[in-house]
Parts: sequence; C-alpha cells; structure tokens
Amino acid sequence: MATYFHSIKRFFTIERIHHGIQGFLTEYETPKIVTIHSITFAIMLRVMQILLLLYGVIYLLIFKHGYQKQDSSIISSITLKVKGIGYIKTALNQTSVIDGADYIIPPSENNAIFVMTNFIRTDQKRALCEESHDVQESICINDETCKKFSKNLLPNANGRWTGKCLIKEQNLNDTITNQTGRCEIEGWCPVEDDRIPPQLVNEALNFTLFVKNFVEFPTFKIIRKNIVDNMKPCIYERTKDDKCPIFRLRDIIETVEPNLEEREQMLRLGGVIRIKLEWDCNFDYDAKRCIPKYSFGRLDARFTEKSFSVGFNFRFASHWKRSQRQYRTLTKAFGLRLIISVSGQAGKFDFITLTLNIGSLMGIFGLATFICDIVMLHFCKKASVYRQYVFQKVHLNTLKNSSTMETN
Amino acid sequence: MATYFHSIKRFFTIERIHHGIQGFLTEYETPKIVTIHSITFAIMLRVMQILLLLYGVIYLLIFKHGYQKQDSSIISSITLKVKGIGYIKTALNQTSVIDGADYIIPPSENNAIFVMTNFIRTDQKRALCEESHDVQESICINDETCKKFSKNLLPNANGRWTGKCLIKEQNLNDTITNQTGRCEIEGWCPVEDDRIPPQLVNEALNFTLFVKNFVEFPTFKIIRKNIVDNMKPCIYERTKDDKCPIFRLRDIIETVEPNLEEREQMLRLGGVIRIKLEWDCNFDYDAKRCIPKYSFGRLDARFTEKSFSVGFNFRFASHWKRSQRQYRTLTKAFGLRLIISVSGQAGKFDFITLTLNIGSLMGIFGLATFICDIVMLHFCKKASVYRQYVFQKVHLNTLKNSSTMETN
Amino acid sequence: MATYFHSIKRFFTIERIHHGIQGFLTEYETPKIVTIHSITFAIMLRVMQILLLLYGVIYLLIFKHGYQKQDSSIISSITLKVKGIGYIKTALNQTSVIDGADYIIPPSENNAIFVMTNFIRTDQKRALCEESHDVQESICINDETCKKFSKNLLPNANGRWTGKCLIKEQNLNDTITNQTGRCEIEGWCPVEDDRIPPQLVNEALNFTLFVKNFVEFPTFKIIRKNIVDNMKPCIYERTKDDKCPIFRLRDIIETVEPNLEEREQMLRLGGVIRIKLEWDCNFDYDAKRCIPKYSFGRLDARFTEKSFSVGFNFRFASHWKRSQRQYRTLTKAFGLRLIISVSGQAGKFDFITLTLNIGSLMGIFGLATFICDIVMLHFCKKASVYRQYVFQKVHLNTLKNSSTMETN
Repeated sequence: MATYFHSIKRFFTIERIHHGIQGFLTEYETPKIVTIHSITFAIMLRVMQILLLLYGVIYLLIFKHGYQKQDSSIISSITLKVKGIGYIKTALNQTSVIDGADYIIPPSENNAIFVMTNFIRTDQKRALCEESHDVQESICINDETCKKFSKNLLPNANGRWTGKCLIKEQNLNDTITNQTGRCEIEGWCPVEDDRIPPQLVNEALNFTLFVKNFVEFPTFKIIRKNIVDNMKPCIYERTKDDKCPIFRLRDIIETVEPNLEEREQMLRLGGVIRIKLEWDCNFDYDAKRCIPKYSFGRLDARFTEKSFSVGFNFRFASHWKRSQRQYRTLTKAFGLRLIISVSGQAGKFDFITLTLNIGSLMGIFGLATFICDIVMLHFCKKASVYRQYVFQKVHLNTLKNSSTMETN
Repeated sequence: MATYFHSIKRFFTIERIHHGIQGFLTEYETPKIVTIHSITFAIMLRVMQILLLLYGVIYLLIFKHGYQKQDSSIISSITLKVKGIGYIKTALNQTSVIDGADYIIPPSENNAIFVMTNFIRTDQKRALCEESHDVQESICINDETCKKFSKNLLPNANGRWTGKCLIKEQNLNDTITNQTGRCEIEGWCPVEDDRIPPQLVNEALNFTLFVKNFVEFPTFKIIRKNIVDNMKPCIYERTKDDKCPIFRLRDIIETVEPNLEEREQMLRLGGVIRIKLEWDCNFDYDAKRCIPKYSFGRLDARFTEKSFSVGFNFRFASHWKRSQRQYRTLTKAFGLRLIISVSGQAGKFDFITLTLNIGSLMGIFGLATFICDIVMLHFCKKASVYRQYVFQKVHLNTLKNSSTMETN
Repeated sequence: MATYFHSIKRFFTIERIHHGIQGFLTEYETPKIVTIHSITFAIMLRVMQILLLLYGVIYLLIFKHGYQKQDSSIISSITLKVKGIGYIKTALNQTSVIDGADYIIPPSENNAIFVMTNFIRTDQKRALCEESHDVQESICINDETCKKFSKNLLPNANGRWTGKCLIKEQNLNDTITNQTGRCEIEGWCPVEDDRIPPQLVNEALNFTLFVKNFVEFPTFKIIRKNIVDNMKPCIYERTKDDKCPIFRLRDIIETVEPNLEEREQMLRLGGVIRIKLEWDCNFDYDAKRCIPKYSFGRLDARFTEKSFSVGFNFRFASHWKRSQRQYRTLTKAFGLRLIISVSGQAGKFDFITLTLNIGSLMGIFGLATFICDIVMLHFCKKASVYRQYVFQKVHLNTLKNSSTMETN
C-alpha cells in the first residue's frame, strides 16, 4: 500500500506534471506500423478493407440510411365516414331502404367502423314463449325435462325456464304418442330464429369509405395528413389513383378475397378487414412527399377452413316501452368490420446517429487487420519470421543492457 | 492443401501450445507508439481528441442520456367522463335540457369521445314522400324524369324512387306552365331537411372532460397513472394547474383555435380535437416525478380553407315500432370529437446501453489519430521523413540478414 | 497557401501515385506490438480481455440476442365476443332476463368491451318535476330560493329550474312551520334516483369473453393470430390451459382482485380491467411457436382507497316518441370495462445488427489494453522504463543523424 502511495506521490511531482503537460502539447503520438512486403497478405488485407468499407459506407450508411435517426412510434388519429344507400327486399317483395344511420353500428368508433350487410331482426317483448330450436336441451315431452334447468340458467338459453313443456296444439290433436314440444321460457319473446331468411343489404358494395388520417412523428415534431389541401372527389384505384383516401367497399373486398363465393359468404356472415396505412417517410426531402400507402387484408378465418369462429356478427337492440311494457327490436347484425391500422416509419439526418454508426464502422474496419494478423502471425509458413518483426520483445531483467544498446 | 495441413500440424505441436499458453499469461502486449516532437501536430491531435471526448462524454453520454436504455413503446388505457348539462331553445321558445345521455354518442368509446354541440333531428317513419331538395336530380316536371332512377339507386338518394313526380297542390293551382316538383321516394319519411335551423346545445363549452390514463412501460415494468392518490376537484389551467386531468371544453377549444368565428363554426359544424398526453420520464429519479404533459391540437381542416371535408358529423337513430309500423328519430349530430393520444418515452440507467455506447465512442475517439495520421504522413512537407519513423519496412528476401542485424 | 499547393502538387506526381498504388497492393500494414515480459500485467490484461469477451459474446450477443434485429412496433387488430345470459330480480320478485344485446353497450367497440353488471333504470319524459335530492341547492322553503338558479344552469342540475318550490302535500297538511320542498325543474322527469336499489345482473361472472387477436410484425412481415387452426371449445385457466383465448369473467376478476368484498364492489359500482396480450417472439425458430401470454390487471382505484374517482359507470338512453311526446329510458350502467392491450416484441437474425454490435464489441475489447496501458505507463514503479520501450521518440532536428543510425 505504501508503495502504491509512494508511486502516486512520485507521479504527481510538479516537475512531472509540468513535463507531462509539455509532452501532451508537443509530442504527437501515433502507433508504429510495420509494413511487410508481401503481395499475398497485402492484397488479402486490402480486399477485406475494401469490402468492409463498401459494406459499411454503401450499404449501412447510404442504402440503410445509417445517417438518419429512425422513428417508428407515431401518433395517429382517424375519422371515418361511410356514404351510400342500400335496400332490402321485404317478405311482401317490397323494398325497404337502409341508410347510414341504419347500417353503421355503433354510429362512431375509434379506428374502426362496422357496415351491416345482412341482419336478422326480431321484434320482442318481455313475455312467456317457447325456447329456440338451437337449444338442444329444450326438446321436451313433458314438464319434467324442463324443470331440470329451471333453477340454474343454461349458458346458451334465451331466458329463464319456467319448467313447463309447450306442446303445439296441432301436435295435441295428433294421435301419435311421442309428441315433442319445447320448454317454455320467460324472457324476450319470441326468441330469435336463425332459420328465417336473413335480410341482405343490397348495394352495400357500392358504399364508399372516406378515411381521414392525421399522423404525428413526435421525434421530428412533424404532422402529416392523408388528404391534400385541394382534394377533389375521387375513388381509390390501386393502379390509377392510389393516393385517394375514398374507397369503394367492392374494391376493398375484391382485393382481400379473390374468391367470389367467399366474398358472398363475407357479406352474408360477416368478416373482418384491415385497412393499413403505411407512412414510410424520409424527412430529408420535402415533408409533402410523405404520403401513406394503402393496403388491405382479411383478418378473419376463411369459411372454407371451417374454423372455430367464422364471420363477424353481434346483436344490438333498440328499446321502448308502451303501457309499462318493455319492447325491443333485436338485430343480429352481420357485416364488414373495417379496422384501420396505421404504421409509420420516418428517418431524418441526425449527426449523433451518424457519429455512432461511424464509431461502429471504425470498429468493424479494424476487423480486417485483426483477422489478417491472426492468419499471418499464427497460421502461415513464415509466421515466426513475421512475429519477430511485429513483436518487439522486452525482458525487464535485460533492461539495463538493452536500453544502452537501443538507438531509438 | 498439403502445405496448409502441414502448417496447421506444425502449429499445434504440444511444445508450441505450451509455449503459446505461457506467452499468453506472461507477455503483456501493447502497440508500440511513435512520439514525434511536433507542436503543430501535437496540438492538432489534442484539440481533436478533446473535442471528440467532450462531444462523446458531455453530449452523447450525459446530455442525451447515453447511459440510459430508452423505451418509447408504451401500453396505455384511457377512461373518459364528460360532465355538464346543456339546453336547446325549441321552436316555441321553450328550453329543452340535454344531458350526458343525450349528447355523448355512442355512450362509450375507446380513446375517444364525441360531444354533440348541434343537431338536426327528424322524426321519420317508413312511407312515401318527396325527395330531399339536396338531390339535384329529383327536380321533375313529370313522372318521366323520376322513372330514370327508379331501378338503380342514386348514391345520394334518400330512398327508392317510385317513379312518380310529386307536384305540390299550390303549384297545380298556379297558371304558370313550368310547374316543378320533386320525385317521390319510398323510405324514411319525411327526409332530413338541412334548411331547418339546427339546434345548438347551449352551455356546451362549460362541460368538463375527465381523462383517466394508465400507462405501462413494459421494458421497465413500471405502471403510472395521471391522477394522484388524494386528488381534489380541480380544472386544468395551462398556467396555474397544468397537472389537473379535468378539462373545460371552453379552454380546450380556445387553445386549439384562437379565432372566435372558427370556434363558433366548430360548435355548429363539428370538429376534431386531439388531446395529447406526453409522458417523458426518467426512471433514474423517483417514478412519482413521472407525470404527463397535456397538449391540444385541432385535427380537422379550418373552415376558411374551404377544404374537401369540413367539420365532423354523423347520423344516428333511435328506432321503435307501433302497430307494426317502424318509426325512428334520425339525428344528424355535429360536435366535438375528442381523440386522446398518448405517447411516452422513458429512460433508465442500463449497463448494456452504456457499454455499447462507450464502445462506439472508443471507435470515434480513434478517429482523431486516424485523421491526423493521414495529414501528417501524406500531406505535410516532412511526410516522407515522418513515414520513415512510423513505418518499419520489412522485406522478406532481406530477412536473414536483417534478422541477424536486429537487436530486438 | 503557395506552399500548400506545392505540397499537393508534389504529392500527386505520376511517379508518386504509381508508387502509392504499388505500395498499397504490396505492403501489408499492421501495428507494431511491444510484448513486455511481465506476469502481473499480462494476467491483468488477459483477465480483462476474457471478462470483456465473455460479457460481449455470452451476454450481449447470445443472451441478449445481439445477433437479432429487434422490433417492438406491432400492428394489432382485435375482435371481441361476450357470451352468456344473466338475469335481474325485479321488484315483484320476478326474474327478468338480460342478454348480450342488453348488457353490452355499445354493441361493438375497438379494443375494448363493456359488460354491464348493475344498473339504475329510469323511464323519463319531458315534463316538470322536482329536482334530485343529490342537488343540495334545490332544498327550498319558498320560490325565492329556486329563482336564484333559474337563469343560469347549475352544472349539476338535472334540468332548467322553473323558479317554483314544490312542497309535498303531506307537508302542507302538517302544522310544522318550516316545511321544506325541492325546486321544480323542466327536463327529463322523473329524475334519476340513486337511492332506489340498483339491479345487479346475476350470473354475470359466468359470461365468457372470446378475444381474437391478429398481430403483424411489419419489420419481419409476419402475421400471427392467437387462435390455432383447429381450435376446440375451451376455457382459459392459468395453470392448465393458458393458451385458450376464451376467458370466464369470474376468472379474470378473481385474478385481478383477490379481495372478495372489492370484487363485489366492482360488480356493483363498476371497474376497469386490462387484459394484456404479450407477444414475445423469436422468429429464428418456427413462427408457430410465437403465441401470446395473457395477463390481467386492474386499472381503476381500489374502493378502500376512497379515491377521487371510483368505479366505472356511464349513462345511456333509448329514445322514442308517442303523440309528439319524447320518452326515454335512461340507464346508469355500472360494469366491467375490459380494455385489451397488445404489446409485442420480436427478434430475428439480422446480419447488419450483428456487424454493428461486433463493431461496438471491438471498441469495448480495445478498452482492456487502453486501461492496462494507462496503469502500466503512468502509475507503476517501472513506468518510465516501460515508456522507453513503448514510445519511440523522434526529434526532427536530430533527424538526419538518427536516420543514418537507424538500421530499419
């Protein structure tokens, strides 16, 4: 320990410090380089250096924009508007018009919109009626069957089972003994019947979707939108007008699903479609050149796959009361759920990123000498000869003598 | 090939390996440095080294938090609540109260909320009536005009055209020959009339918006919320209380739009406003100091710009039935769509990031010698003299002789 | 300046360029290394080098996947479906069934869903009635009290105050002098009464939530979903079946809140729960092994904390008209708001990332020699001796002489 302090003390004498500063300011230091005349190794080294340099400069720095700070975390805000009018054919062969307030449910969502293309509508009131044919357990021949589930609710039941077995009158008149009926429920009556033909919304494919998107790149503090200032009415077409943010549903669905039968199933049973906006921007150029690319994809399982969960549907209801009685119109809505997803990536010249990347490249560049040295000093025929020149051995016990012998 | 194997064989003799390990553990290796007494180059080198060191350490490591792992991918959850009561003046100069259940549509959205500030309400039923005055094609003098579109739906029609031309009776009594009417439609009647004065929701600017935000930084496994534990009722004010997460709509709209006329248009025709929560956190300090900054921005086009798409509106309806007849109240809602966007950036000391950055800095530091060497050994007057000292030339054919001559 | 041009001119003679290229292709350059026989320093250097190598290769490159390009910006799309049937006990001890169309409000949201577990329902029409007992200012003994707020709306009022004080008839018959009443309002009547017992939705905990999630890693252009192709009906269980995307609400709520009383409060007063899907993928393996982990968390304040804002509720209404009169059923809905958040991180072998990291490691590796050199050449006993060998001093004024003396 004492020795250690002594050495520090010895190091920090005024004379030494003065000498040190003088040396620091007058002595230029650079590593001594041994140059060995060897065409094989010289070319090997140069080729490696050139390859690393080309890779580093051309690929990393220039092609991969190594001089740019990259940012892929964007803030996006979307407003959506669907326009168009559809109609359904009612039972009496009349047409009934379906407009935006009818087919968009809920009227406004964030980053998504649902367009109803098919529905089953049931007018209901709170009453007693027979269970749905969908519920297998509700087939009964007498009240006993129905009493089993009258206390605990069946998860897929449509109401509380009263315990009665409703056998239709026409059956009662029959002489056949094994008459079957359905258990009675207390709930919303009549229950929804999947067997009645659903009502396809005609013209739904002609609806148009207008997507307004505002994007902010917080790192660069730049805000962009996908509509130009003096925008004219247009329709997106992949080949002709791929900058227009107004999409016809027909075009979207035909892009995501080439199969006609699948498309018809999607309209009938619902589907989930993603509309992707990709902002790939280079802010070293004019920010106005930063415009999104639109692409479409299907997010649900194809019907041919017979998956666990096909299509897209949900139920909603409008409620009202009359003379203390609750009524509702239940709608099982099938349709296209359009989910908008926005991703962005932007780059801009950044001195720090550039220097950090150059720092890395310097290290990589040193790799050439590192590898060649290993080969030359250890694995080649004349390795021991080269080692004599590259390494200057110092033995401290021979110090005095050698120091006097040394000329440098 | 044989030579190659021979060289490998020669390399891996026990003696050599023993010698190699001994050398590895006893021989300290360091590059030989040539120090050249030259004040010009010494100062040039030192200045460059000091600049690179200052830049690297002070700017990159300290100012830019190069010792921190940065994370900008956050998980955010938001719940919103608007409070307040407004009213409209009805035709008979009566006031009709509008509460939250009336003006927030839909009642709950994810990361967004819509506050209705103006609306056009139309009570409709399924019937026959004349087309809207908005549809230019519906002006008719006889049924011929209307039959053109009775098969194909016009995209902007309000219903299916029956093919009849409805001419008002008062017109019939006129003696003027060019009586004009409107085509008859079958659909929701009467159609919405934009010309009737809309109903502005008074006091809407006094509504308050409460934003609850939970943020998780998954890299650091830290969860933060924007409300303090013992929060008191407050109102956000940019200068006084900028930590309060309760905003008065008036303050928001005045911040995003200084122009009074524009603000009135926004209430009348709707607008889209973004509320941004920015979490910029340094988890090397107490996580409690990590609180968001609120900022507001307008996301729609200004009305003075006469853009393709101004304001923000959508239609929704409440449906009911009476005696098998469908009724609905259609509401065209104008209002403020408030979109909440959350962005976050956090840093925390990370040893790996620090070492990787130091590694880069080492490379950058070597840049000083690299550049000075190029100048000194190639571009200065005494370059050839310096080269003699820095480069030690070895010619293999002169090896035997020189090796004997060498003292080291 | 002239000197400078001269030097450039001198540099770019054909002879020199020819010589330069020849040298470039035939002279192998490598730093001259001084090897000093010192066991102390050799071991010190080797230990540091081995530590840095182990840290760099094993920790950074292998354990931290330094050979992989990392991407944490994902695009996620979610569809949600809640199944189950609940019931409420009505005042007359009857049961009334509540199905999905009743308890999910709004019927569809993006990345979130609300399940109503408790509600207060009030049938209202536009009329005159007394103010809510919640509004303290509405207690009156005569009309004077009520006229104060008849012009300006109280923020928490339920309607416009007419200025009348409604004193109940039973009070009038009393002989007590200080009869109190409530101010009359014009608005939706009767006002909601928090004191009436709310209607808990029984069986709500048995509802199941099906989460379908599509994730895209844009950097790697890989799309993954959280359901397998041949999925069978299942229920998520943390220990047994943690890959099933169907969750029972009971399991979710029990995971986020171990306290039974709190759980009951959450059903009664509402709560916000986050379901997190974490995709942590390594695409160097089969993409099929990339499946999400599910976790649950409570996002609202605990009721025992007596926070500023507890629970989660909002109001919605269904509207209808009869004989020109507006009616609505106002529902104050309490329930579980389930917010789905998706985070992802993926890595894949990337040559560029690998080389940049190796570049950094090379720099770090040089740190060993750098530090040892400082110790050896400045702080050890024999420093000055070592310095003689490592540094080769060159004085330009002694150049002529020394150059002739030099053998190399």
